Amino acid sequence: MTDDQALMEMALAEARRAGERGEVPIGAVVAIEGAVVAARHNERERTGDPTAHAEILALRDAAAAQGSSRLDGATLATTLEPCPMCAGAALTARVGRVVFAAEDPKAGACGTLYNLGADPRLNHNFDVVPGIGREESAALLRGFFAARR
Amino acid sequence: MTDDQALMEMALAEARRAGERGEVPIGAVVAIEGAVVAARHNERERTGDPTAHAEILALRDAAAAQGSSRLDGATLATTLEPCPMCAGAALTARVGRVVFAAEDPKAGACGTLYNLGADPRLNHNFDVVPGIGREESAALLRGFFAARR
Repeated sequence: MTDDQALMEMALAEARRAGERGEVPIGAVVAIEGAVVAARHNERERTGDPTAHAEILALRDAAAAQGSSRLDGATLATTLEPCPMCAGAALTARVGRVVFAAEDPKAGACGTLYNLGADPRLNHNFDVVPGIGREESAALLRGFFAARR
Repeated sequence: MTDDQALMEMALAEARRAGERGEVPIGAVVAIEGAVVAARHNERERTGDPTAHAEILALRDAAAAQGSSRLDGATLATTLEPCPMCAGAALTARVGRVVFAAEDPKAGACGTLYNLGADPRLNHNFDVVPGIGREESAALLRGFFAARR
């Protein structure tokens, strides 16, 4: 298993935890120099906070753990392609890489609708690795929404 | 003075407060049905939180005040054009309008580099009113960065 696969397994475990708690099943982890410093899941329902996406929460935890708002070289691994808010947070936190599982045709901002990590006009860029764990993440999301209908 | 001008005066007061505290002087307020429900300024230095832009903090406060992650019909007034993270947060919070003072040529996502509120592919749109208080906001930012050089 590659490091990215191991990170995605942790993000998927967070996503399953979210689903068990009635949240849209999305999870994210942040790793710096091979060490996981944050692992969170979507908490929008529980908190009523519109910004409580897994990625935002994980980036905030990672910054607190590092004692710095700049996460140079960090990898953000998330089970769904980040939306504009979360991709923008990855930019402002200056992460080095975003690894995601399933593409988001409705709001994806790391290659689908936008590609915010690869815009030369912005003052930071990050690499994007899509598709690791795609099927497992997509199945979690399908199952969650099917059960709600 | 229009309602938007009054909101921007409050946002500019928050921006000045940020500058006095060594933060990049940017402020934001959220109003719903004419009532201001949140007023915050940038707190990235103090908190070390990369997501602690004025707009994110104000949207979180507004959601807590409303008891809902959806701020339908809300106006977000901010002294600098929102970056992708903050414009994305305005989308996910479903605000109705974004009023901003100064354009941001480096990261503006409400008309300058991107126009996230007006993308028909996304599941929400918002109106944008630029330029109210532009000169005062730009002067605050210029003064702040000049003093740091």
